[in-house]
Amino acid sequence: MAEARLVKQIEFLMEIDRLKNVFRRAYITDASRRENSAEHSWHVATTAMVLAEHCQEEINMLHVIKTLLIHDIVEIDAGDTGIYDDIGARDKAEREGRAAERLFSLLPVEQAQELRGLWDEFERGTTPEAKFARAIDRLMPLLHNYYTRGKRWLEDGITYDQVLAVNQSIREGSEELWDFALSMVEESVSRGYLPRADKAAGDS
Amino acid sequence: MAEARLVKQIEFLMEIDRLKNVFRRAYITDASRRENSAEHSWHVATTAMVLAEHCQEEINMLHVIKTLLIHDIVEIDAGDTGIYDDIGARDKAEREGRAAERLFSLLPVEQAQELRGLWDEFERGTTPEAKFARAIDRLMPLLHNYYTRGKRWLEDGITYDQVLAVNQSIREGSEELWDFALSMVEESVSRGYLPRADKAAGDS
Repeated sequence: MAEARLVKQIEFLMEIDRLKNVFRRAYITDASRRENSAEHSWHVATTAMVLAEHCQEEINMLHVIKTLLIHDIVEIDAGDTGIYDDIGARDKAEREGRAAERLFSLLPVEQAQELRGLWDEFERGTTPEAKFARAIDRLMPLLHNYYTRGKRWLEDGITYDQVLAVNQSIREGSEELWDFALSMVEESVSRGYLPRADKAAGDS
Repeated sequence: MAEARLVKQIEFLMEIDRLKNVFRRAYITDASRRENSAEHSWHVATTAMVLAEHCQEEINMLHVIKTLLIHDIVEIDAGDTGIYDDIGARDKAEREGRAAERLFSLLPVEQAQELRGLWDEFERGTTPEAKFARAIDRLMPLLHNYYTRGKRWLEDGITYDQVLAVNQSIREGSEELWDFALSMVEESVSRGYLPRADKAAGDS
């Protein structure tokens, strides 16, 4: 049988297969079903690769893509917490921290540290790579909403103000992508995909 | 509105969202449903990252991961052709070539050339990066079969000889992963997940 190190790696890789059964709020583009977090992770990694030139700073793209490949695996234990879910947000860090502890430690020690480091960096969002990864991760649901005529926004009663507030991290990762996102959000309002509300968003 | 270049990139990225509706032969690990090609692409890219040390040659991991992120997008038009599908194999190259032509050309010209180049390189399988990517792409269905007690192999009447013949490309990418795969296949036979047949595989 193979060396212990490879066996640990394979066990980790098969454990994270479960990300394919974690479903997000977002719909896929044909609006036929909700998106799972594994295919979302593929989509954001591919998007970072294609949109790399729109990051103002010099960044290490391998670092960004590695981050995006593992950024959601904690949802296997912690579930997906929607970006407009104020209640879920209260203990999100605690739930996801426990999940990160269990999942990454399936790997050989120094590899666990490396990937856990990427995840922590993404959560903190302070390095240029983490900022760009976060921008891409936030851009994607905007695109899915726009392409499904605001299906998720309308079902959840999300408003223009909320969308702007939650998506500021796109601006931190890329001014160009933020300009694009903003024009898409404005167009969503004018097309009736997204209500422009006057009242304050959320009251919890 | 954003510059034409970004618009083309976004259109490509939303078009490839359709990969989430292309279903493969493989079952996900809990055997509850078949795997789609988008989540498969995430899984192989992540696997390449985690198993990088098992490649004998010095390879550019960003190159490998980029390749794996886009290696299956042609299936959006061409469908998934199973690795034991001798009939589908006859016109696979032609179908997938047409798909590559249409899909990559949604991108700005030089980016289309870059990604089409990665896909062509993967299909030829002659560079160290392409060999490692192909090894990972072949290893994954073995793992899924092993973890689902041979569900797909048994349903499709696949035999030990066929599995060995089809998976030689794992050896070309990594001797260590090939040794591991071989021991997993042998164990699958002894556990009854995979019949050891005497007759020649396939007669079409």
